[in-house]
Amino acid sequence: MQAAIEAPDLALRESLVHRIDQKTKPPGALGRLEALALQIGLIQQTLTPSLERPQILVFAGDHGAARAGVSAFPQEVTWQMVENFLAGGAAINVFCRQTGLALKVVDAGVNHDFGQHPGLIDEKIGHGTQNYLEAPAIAPEAVALALERGRRLTHRLAEEGCRVLGFGEMGIGNTASASLLTHCLTDADLTAVTGRGTGLDDAGLARKRALLEQAVTRGGRPTDPLRALSEYGGYEIAMMAGAMLGAAERRMVLLIDGFIVTAALLAAHAIAPAILPYCVFAHRSREPGHTWQLEHLGADPLIELDLRLGEGTGAALAYPLVQAAVNFLNEMASFESAGVSERQP
Amino acid sequence: MQAAIEAPDLALRESLVHRIDQKTKPPGALGRLEALALQIGLIQQTLTPSLERPQILVFAGDHGAARAGVSAFPQEVTWQMVENFLAGGAAINVFCRQTGLALKVVDAGVNHDFGQHPGLIDEKIGHGTQNYLEAPAIAPEAVALALERGRRLTHRLAEEGCRVLGFGEMGIGNTASASLLTHCLTDADLTAVTGRGTGLDDAGLARKRALLEQAVTRGGRPTDPLRALSEYGGYEIAMMAGAMLGAAERRMVLLIDGFIVTAALLAAHAIAPAILPYCVFAHRSREPGHTWQLEHLGADPLIELDLRLGEGTGAALAYPLVQAAVNFLNEMASFESAGVSERQP
Repeated sequence: MQAAIEAPDLALRESLVHRIDQKTKPPGALGRLEALALQIGLIQQTLTPSLERPQILVFAGDHGAARAGVSAFPQEVTWQMVENFLAGGAAINVFCRQTGLALKVVDAGVNHDFGQHPGLIDEKIGHGTQNYLEAPAIAPEAVALALERGRRLTHRLAEEGCRVLGFGEMGIGNTASASLLTHCLTDADLTAVTGRGTGLDDAGLARKRALLEQAVTRGGRPTDPLRALSEYGGYEIAMMAGAMLGAAERRMVLLIDGFIVTAALLAAHAIAPAILPYCVFAHRSREPGHTWQLEHLGADPLIELDLRLGEGTGAALAYPLVQAAVNFLNEMASFESAGVSERQP
Repeated sequence: MQAAIEAPDLALRESLVHRIDQKTKPPGALGRLEALALQIGLIQQTLTPSLERPQILVFAGDHGAARAGVSAFPQEVTWQMVENFLAGGAAINVFCRQTGLALKVVDAGVNHDFGQHPGLIDEKIGHGTQNYLEAPAIAPEAVALALERGRRLTHRLAEEGCRVLGFGEMGIGNTASASLLTHCLTDADLTAVTGRGTGLDDAGLARKRALLEQAVTRGGRPTDPLRALSEYGGYEIAMMAGAMLGAAERRMVLLIDGFIVTAALLAAHAIAPAILPYCVFAHRSREPGHTWQLEHLGADPLIELDLRLGEGTGAALAYPLVQAAVNFLNEMASFESAGVSERQP
């Protein structure tokens, strides 16, 4: 897959920094919000950025390996939670409502037929992946299809005016998939990036680690992102990677959630490194592999609340900080306009 | 001063934990938001807390020592920034508007006459404090008056239905005052808790440290909170301490901002240690003394964005997380109501 991502032109940088420094506050006093305002100004190539039609997409898919015991929850929870999203009862619904984020669920490959629903985008590639303990999870053509469908989806959103997009996911077993992908796409040791997911106990974690070692014995450690997605991916992870590439092509602000979303970003980044300046890293998950991923990408997320829920909840919770960065840039008075004295010489 | 603060009854704890654990998420997956929901439920003694009439109060006052060179900005900036608050152009205005927080400025002792303004609460005790390099900053009777006026102010807010109150401040020179108070009210070394404030350079920081050493040579290191406030306090800091005590007496949720607000809390806590369970620590400031204060209080704030602006901006920026904690508790479906399977045995 080729992605036509252009890194933001930096010519505007000096004007943005000047605008930030003229606000009625000591230089630098808004800390990381100032860096965020600069980043978003550069992404949108304007001194007055705006966050139109902000949205969270929750990509859902099932994992064949879930039936082998890599998760504390049964596979049916994927579709049950999708129904919960559609009914408005999950954490991500609550946080999106609070912050004015639109929310859609993308069925990338759930093992369930939902019928039509206004909150659901049907991009189903299959009824769950193959069990990677026995065979590659996704056929190479299906990986390409998932990437392309994700990309087209965000192109459509861009045409509808969406300028900021948060990524979330649901898929029982997908922390295991994310661990394998992180092992392939960074230099991380598999054990170091394999955590408790939804809450395995010590015995469950040991079993998960043994199963993932077994998977790698079968499938190896491909460093090519498409091959890695084929061996171990989820449909939701592959489609997210494509959606991220499409969103960066259209100069959206990308809100990156936790461990699984960042696994998708590792794949997108391996395809097109120019994606990085478009990414706002929302939070640091409690899942230990997330910190490895963030270090690999040189990223320092905005918040750290020991979250490990997924769904895009970290992205939704960090979104008010993104709004705050844009709002102070647009709304604060300058020293001159407010008649406030500057620093003493 | 006596404060009639009762620690929250813990009898409801088990029911709250059960309610949190029955939400459609793995136990603990919302991390620190779960602890926050529990805290607020206990403060309000209910399984369904609500954040009525949320408000930020910005306490403003001038410091005689500002004219001696403890700040990078001239003293006039205090009143100029108050005018900026009243005109809606400061960072705290922007963040309050974004989040639906009401905002009022309390003139505790600014060296300026503002006249009447609907956004201003006139509780002026004096036109700036004395210069503590030469004499105690505030007379003991004025400290008592500031505490009592702060306390009555929050009692009035409670009667109007305010359940959550964020604290902010404005006062050129008040990081210096906060450093001295922190030195008195914790076991911290004065140099360790004296930072750059609004942005002193190395020479300015060295001068500030020398001046504060000189102040301590004159005024000593009183560990009694009223005496410490008298020697080194600001009117805004003393009044904030009283307002915090009054707010906790009325079982409000207190949003604690950065270094100066936490200095006020050190005084309030020394008067009434039972205040602590009512405090939500919003953020960790870049001002180094803030971390000393937080350790002294055993507090771990919600966000860390290298802010060092004051005004209550950290409290306003963290407020959406407080809303999120309450909202998930009230709005999320339970496993049973959503028909989602629980963990595998």
